[in-house]
Amino acid sequence: MNKPVAPAAVESVPAKAGGVRAFWSWLTSAGRAQARQPISGAELRQARATFRECLEGKGGEASARRRVESLVALYRRLNDPGRESVLALLAEEFGPDELALNRAIQAYLDAPQGGERRQAETQLRLALASPRIRILRQFNLLHEGVKFLVDVRADVLRQLRERPALAALDEELAALFSSWFDIGNLELRRISWSSPAALLEKLIAYEAVHEIQSWRDLRNRLDSDRRCYAFFHPRMPDEPLIFVEVALVKEMADNIHHLLDEEAPAFDARAAQAAIFYSISNTQAGLKGVSFGGFLIKRVVEELLAEFPRLKTFATLSPVPGFRKWLDARVAAKDQSLFGRRERERLCREAGAAEPCDAFAQLMLRGFVAEAQPPESLRVALMHLCARYLVEEKAAEPGGAARPLDPVARFHLGNGARLERINWLGDTSPRAVKQAAGIMVNYLYKLDDIEENHEAHARDGRVAISDAVKRLLRKPA
Amino acid sequence: MNKPVAPAAVESVPAKAGGVRAFWSWLTSAGRAQARQPISGAELRQARATFRECLEGKGGEASARRRVESLVALYRRLNDPGRESVLALLAEEFGPDELALNRAIQAYLDAPQGGERRQAETQLRLALASPRIRILRQFNLLHEGVKFLVDVRADVLRQLRERPALAALDEELAALFSSWFDIGNLELRRISWSSPAALLEKLIAYEAVHEIQSWRDLRNRLDSDRRCYAFFHPRMPDEPLIFVEVALVKEMADNIHHLLDEEAPAFDARAAQAAIFYSISNTQAGLKGVSFGGFLIKRVVEELLAEFPRLKTFATLSPVPGFRKWLDARVAAKDQSLFGRRERERLCREAGAAEPCDAFAQLMLRGFVAEAQPPESLRVALMHLCARYLVEEKAAEPGGAARPLDPVARFHLGNGARLERINWLGDTSPRAVKQAAGIMVNYLYKLDDIEENHEAHARDGRVAISDAVKRLLRKPA
Amino acid sequence: MNKPVAPAAVESVPAKAGGVRAFWSWLTSAGRAQARQPISGAELRQARATFRECLEGKGGEASARRRVESLVALYRRLNDPGRESVLALLAEEFGPDELALNRAIQAYLDAPQGGERRQAETQLRLALASPRIRILRQFNLLHEGVKFLVDVRADVLRQLRERPALAALDEELAALFSSWFDIGNLELRRISWSSPAALLEKLIAYEAVHEIQSWRDLRNRLDSDRRCYAFFHPRMPDEPLIFVEVALVKEMADNIHHLLDEEAPAFDARAAQAAIFYSISNTQAGLKGVSFGGFLIKRVVEELLAEFPRLKTFATLSPVPGFRKWLDARVAAKDQSLFGRRERERLCREAGAAEPCDAFAQLMLRGFVAEAQPPESLRVALMHLCARYLVEEKAAEPGGAARPLDPVARFHLGNGARLERINWLGDTSPRAVKQAAGIMVNYLYKLDDIEENHEAHARDGRVAISDAVKRLLRKPA
Amino acid sequence: MNKPVAPAAVESVPAKAGGVRAFWSWLTSAGRAQARQPISGAELRQARATFRECLEGKGGEASARRRVESLVALYRRLNDPGRESVLALLAEEFGPDELALNRAIQAYLDAPQGGERRQAETQLRLALASPRIRILRQFNLLHEGVKFLVDVRADVLRQLRERPALAALDEELAALFSSWFDIGNLELRRISWSSPAALLEKLIAYEAVHEIQSWRDLRNRLDSDRRCYAFFHPRMPDEPLIFVEVALVKEMADNIHHLLDEEAPAFDARAAQAAIFYSISNTQAGLKGVSFGGFLIKRVVEELLAEFPRLKTFATLSPVPGFRKWLDARVAAKDQSLFGRRERERLCREAGAAEPCDAFAQLMLRGFVAEAQPPESLRVALMHLCARYLVEEKAAEPGGAARPLDPVARFHLGNGARLERINWLGDTSPRAVKQAAGIMVNYLYKLDDIEENHEAHARDGRVAISDAVKRLLRKPA
Repeated sequence: MNKPVAPAAVESVPAKAGGVRAFWSWLTSAGRAQARQPISGAELRQARATFRECLEGKGGEASARRRVESLVALYRRLNDPGRESVLALLAEEFGPDELALNRAIQAYLDAPQGGERRQAETQLRLALASPRIRILRQFNLLHEGVKFLVDVRADVLRQLRERPALAALDEELAALFSSWFDIGNLELRRISWSSPAALLEKLIAYEAVHEIQSWRDLRNRLDSDRRCYAFFHPRMPDEPLIFVEVALVKEMADNIHHLLDEEAPAFDARAAQAAIFYSISNTQAGLKGVSFGGFLIKRVVEELLAEFPRLKTFATLSPVPGFRKWLDARVAAKDQSLFGRRERERLCREAGAAEPCDAFAQLMLRGFVAEAQPPESLRVALMHLCARYLVEEKAAEPGGAARPLDPVARFHLGNGARLERINWLGDTSPRAVKQAAGIMVNYLYKLDDIEENHEAHARDGRVAISDAVKRLLRKPA
Repeated sequence: MNKPVAPAAVESVPAKAGGVRAFWSWLTSAGRAQARQPISGAELRQARATFRECLEGKGGEASARRRVESLVALYRRLNDPGRESVLALLAEEFGPDELALNRAIQAYLDAPQGGERRQAETQLRLALASPRIRILRQFNLLHEGVKFLVDVRADVLRQLRERPALAALDEELAALFSSWFDIGNLELRRISWSSPAALLEKLIAYEAVHEIQSWRDLRNRLDSDRRCYAFFHPRMPDEPLIFVEVALVKEMADNIHHLLDEEAPAFDARAAQAAIFYSISNTQAGLKGVSFGGFLIKRVVEELLAEFPRLKTFATLSPVPGFRKWLDARVAAKDQSLFGRRERERLCREAGAAEPCDAFAQLMLRGFVAEAQPPESLRVALMHLCARYLVEEKAAEPGGAARPLDPVARFHLGNGARLERINWLGDTSPRAVKQAAGIMVNYLYKLDDIEENHEAHARDGRVAISDAVKRLLRKPA
Repeated sequence: MNKPVAPAAVESVPAKAGGVRAFWSWLTSAGRAQARQPISGAELRQARATFRECLEGKGGEASARRRVESLVALYRRLNDPGRESVLALLAEEFGPDELALNRAIQAYLDAPQGGERRQAETQLRLALASPRIRILRQFNLLHEGVKFLVDVRADVLRQLRERPALAALDEELAALFSSWFDIGNLELRRISWSSPAALLEKLIAYEAVHEIQSWRDLRNRLDSDRRCYAFFHPRMPDEPLIFVEVALVKEMADNIHHLLDEEAPAFDARAAQAAIFYSISNTQAGLKGVSFGGFLIKRVVEELLAEFPRLKTFATLSPVPGFRKWLDARVAAKDQSLFGRRERERLCREAGAAEPCDAFAQLMLRGFVAEAQPPESLRVALMHLCARYLVEEKAAEPGGAARPLDPVARFHLGNGARLERINWLGDTSPRAVKQAAGIMVNYLYKLDDIEENHEAHARDGRVAISDAVKRLLRKPA
Repeated sequence: MNKPVAPAAVESVPAKAGGVRAFWSWLTSAGRAQARQPISGAELRQARATFRECLEGKGGEASARRRVESLVALYRRLNDPGRESVLALLAEEFGPDELALNRAIQAYLDAPQGGERRQAETQLRLALASPRIRILRQFNLLHEGVKFLVDVRADVLRQLRERPALAALDEELAALFSSWFDIGNLELRRISWSSPAALLEKLIAYEAVHEIQSWRDLRNRLDSDRRCYAFFHPRMPDEPLIFVEVALVKEMADNIHHLLDEEAPAFDARAAQAAIFYSISNTQAGLKGVSFGGFLIKRVVEELLAEFPRLKTFATLSPVPGFRKWLDARVAAKDQSLFGRRERERLCREAGAAEPCDAFAQLMLRGFVAEAQPPESLRVALMHLCARYLVEEKAAEPGGAARPLDPVARFHLGNGARLERINWLGDTSPRAVKQAAGIMVNYLYKLDDIEENHEAHARDGRVAISDAVKRLLRKPA
């Protein structure tokens, strides 16, 4: 399966420590939130009975709504093991009728080619339509039903590793969502300082790349030289599904701190020549595998061009979340191929160490401590190694083709962007230093080339890179 | 399969002669409409190529949109055989990968119970997901895409009898629609004289039970003592999917002409005690089998009660579309059991005929000709026979249970209503005389009993009838 | 006073026979409408008391609303003399406090120049603020209050000639309306076939130039090559104040029947080079003197240019409502200067009459009877005389400058348009023949010249005319 | 004149120190805001010329809009003396034509009673209509024009004392606003956490009674047991004109800190029996004298009752802004009547002072310093004196009747409320201690009595007080 990469999982690999959690505990202030509870035997029996009633479909819409409401109320008050029991019940007892399925399989195998085979195929498909999914679709009757199911799938995904029997349920929910959250059903909306505060505080909670520090920080990100867009679904009108923050600037930005500086004067947006996508966050864990990131960027480019016809450059300013993890492992393994010959000598000399990898590790330790300015030798080594990491390190996909190891690179390069520039000290926050030695990257969305890049990448994994990056790839002497 | 009965197919069995057709030819006035054309070999090859490109998914959303736009344009300009070729192409060449499907079947048959079986089931389901449906779902990208697919299915349904290979396509579209047009996604809207004229003229076109004669007739049906409600889907915002017309009156109405009389003064709606549903029309042939009629009536009852808390009675004033067809066949077969002994004599005497069925046929001919007042003997016989027809004549469903033969009775009784009253000369229009000897029927929606009636009917086909109808069932002496 | 000319009073001098009346009697069908009644002594005393309570302002908003509601109910059920009594009561008993006014006058006359004079002026203005207008402004509390006052002023205007004491009331209402209906408060809305039917039927009722015959006629006027715009006020959201109908065509239209032909195919609006304003109707008699006609045309030109950038020509196709009235009077007075010397001979010869005016009158009678084609000699004479009428016949305004006698000419030429073309047999309906011998006129709104034309006309009454019209002005030999 | 008291002027007498100013300097951060500049001779001549062009009305709407836009731009960049010059120009050179006015006065004085007098009155009124106001009304053409004029009047009001010649301009703007901002034109809207952040930050800026400390404080004030309502005008859609904050609680609140406590759990609003209006703020200085405070409270009571039918008590929790100012003056003047005989002895003894007023002053100083708990003797004296201040201290109005000296009391008692309870230490913030020795007051809006209270107060200045307050009025022994 060629599951698209979700950008948030990507641009923010180690999930924001405390952010969302702290926020939610504020929303549902400790005193009021009730502890979730285990499920009782009676409750489990009741759940089974209610599932059955959902299938029998007694009464009209009102009865159906009452039934799913009671299930929502039960599920919401259960703790994790309790929820797991309910999901397991659903997965195991409300699958397709195996007898009917076997009959349909036999009929299919027996059918001659042509019309009869088509009809047998249809019967087989109907036999596979599970009672589970008929139950789940009834939650759509509730105002909050779609959001509820999305949250249920987030639970399923968490438990999937330990409970493979939930796979069918997961796949059915994913199929349902890929129909419901079809791009044609999504609405692109601009989010601005005139948006409801209740929506804006969700941005604060969900922002997964560069944490929003305060309402003032948020206001700055929605100033006249900034844009923010999100996809919404009509059945979850108050929940952004994914959002992107854009800065309108003179030229391709190389430093996130400049963009987020609240004291900097606003730029005259009409004079902007570059639009920098500096943060993309998915918000719904339960929509994993339902892809809209690529659509979002392309639609936002259209919106921006309509408003600012002078824009020439569309690029991201992105983190490199996996760089240090990869690099530190290589260094620990004393991989001599990391450095050129003369470089090795220089490193040893500078660090006063015998072995180049040790030397490098020591220099890293010193160079990034206490806001020291890392030395030139470190800059040269890291810029080269980062280019190598982004362009040459691949992971094989289930399907087959090798894709970039770095998840953000995988997302943007797969989307048709070009790896344009690697920026030294683009983000010197502790987290960025820990993840990427402070390096940030520009992926360029060049309108004329996107399609070709996308296809070359899809076909044989080729990635588009600029001349500057090509130069960085040459190993320093 | 327990496919719900669509009410319009029902309340208007012989489709409105000329109505819709005349209307559309007005809309697209003869001079302007272009004749639809046959498909060329090149066009068919192009269609095949475009279908393939849809699956390959080259380019972004814009490319995808251009592709389906070109398919829509092609399809729209084709004549019926041309469209059939395109649909056949889709049905036959873009089904599931048979090899992969057979592998998945084998894996399923081999899998042990439990988690592994669940995973095999999931794989089987994925293997069945046909390329066809992936193509069709891309039409959702277009503003008019949902309506286009609904119209395509109308074409499929028309061709289905002669081309059974289209069954799989039909089933896939039906499954897609039953997800898209889920009741949770529908919006109930009141239609009034303040609705857009462009919407109101669709009521004129779509009204399938009692034809709307003019804008003045329409205005009368939207007066202060009338209500009209329809279901809409957000992706087809200008198309009512089904609509119902309601009259607010003093008591249960027995005559359609009184309700539609443009000269009658408006009733003070706040004093109304009865709400009469006198017309329900489905509008989209392509949504056959996607049921919302029952939901509509129940939701409208809620709306009406909220606005007029004094309402006591909710009932229909409905046609009996199949009565004469059934009766005439029996009479032609000289079924002696139709009439009581003394009745037979009376009929022969009145008609001056030797055989009671012949006599009856002659009396019918005379009684309803030239707006004559049919004689009492005819009234007695027809009221009894109509009760018998509605209550006792059944048709076996595919699933098993016997359901009323009359489609309107099947719809309302299955919905939980009670057959309340049979009204002599309730509709003396030529069409109603031809279908039902001028008889109309009230089905009563008694809020407390709906659920029980619905279930008794679902369980063992029992129908709820009033004492008055019970009396009519006794054969006249 | 330099009161602007209201276009409807103009483009439709003899009010539409039966149109509005017939419509309203349909709306409020005879059986339901209650006859309006005379006022009783008690009712008049009650009105006086309620007016006083309005001024005392007892209670809060709810009491104030109840008071004006009772006044509205009273007024609505009164017949014309009854309404007149109420208005007279208001005009005569609720004027400014004369004592206080005289004191304020004295103080003003005594005040020295400068700040003190300014304060005295302020006190004088306050002393003039009449209780009447404080009462009337309270009707604004009602949802329908603004429309009510507009209708009240229509009553005042009708009675003004016979009751000069209503002049103060009229002026106060006019001042109030010119504040409320300030152009900044009006909203330009496009009216289309997607507008509410309840609004569209008002177009049918209000259209004052070319009567709308049917819903089908209306639909044709809202087709893809037509536009209709109206001004609305937020407090009368369902009432168009003035509306204009526009045809998008290839070139300047010369014949109204072609524009209104329901059988003609729709023109591709994107290819249109000319926008023809073929009907402008004011709808509210009570807003006489509150001018928005000129604004409307200029705003609509902006809207059209935004939608159709290729448009080159903006022109009207207008009636000449006063032509025959002027001409017939001259002919009756045997004005020999109407015709050239040889023309006189020709007319006498053709008509077989001794005197040219008699001859002309006879030819007119024959030429336009029974759809006969009028002879060439008539065409030549009438085209010349119409040009003369439009350009040379003036009426002195109260202020001073001479303005065109023809009201439609006065409106458009005063607005900055140019008299562009006179069209023979542009409208052969009986009404147009009776008013203008079937002639129609194009006034051209040339964007670059409007302002200059407007000012030349405002300064010294000069009118802009085309070369073609100049040629027509030369007397035929 | 009986000008209504504007509540904000009232509930927040010493304008929020720094609040709005600080906010605006944040909005238009120092670096970006341009310093306002003096007017040049050329600019003043240009302004005069543009004013004249406004009156001549050359060109159409677009020209008129350009003219006023240039005036707005000029005015906005001027410093205070520059603006004053422009306003003086307008006031002095664009008043009514004195000659015409004198003629109209003479005609009025000469006219006989009846119709002719009415017409002369009309002519006089027209002669008084100043060119100034015709100019000002053209600003209505601009999107921001209404807000601009409101801000201009704020400037006029500030300069009025030193420039009495601006009085006429002030009165004309006030008259214009009282027409534009008529209660019938205002829209009551609920403000909630789902309102635009750009609106919510205005609450933060404008709150004039209990300063909003942070977004979290604001969020707390919009929680489920709180309501906030504001009046808006359609031409200033983003500017609340006046807003009120309401707490839904169990019983009449006596302490503002409890209401504003962010840590307190939300109360179940459906169980609330009392609605406490704890803050009312006017926001537009330029709308002084245009009253909507009374309407607001009564409309909000209606809204609340519709949502929460169980509410029994509607009351304010209000400051007493003038108490200390009055009291301190009396104490300074050694007014012996402030205290009872035995009280005087007790005060002297407690303070160790010879004179009771000195003693009281010393006790006040000590009692409220450093959050000390003031002694019982102080409580007794202050509660009595506050009741006396509120009930017995009056100021004569221009019109005649004596009204409460305290501005908040004047507003609520004039509105029909009852002085219900005086709360010791209801607000211990430094500002409240300085203004009112920490005392807060409940004014009760008892629905059945409002009208009677309002009228008794309007008639003879009587105020409604509870038994508890009556008891406090008795001088302590």
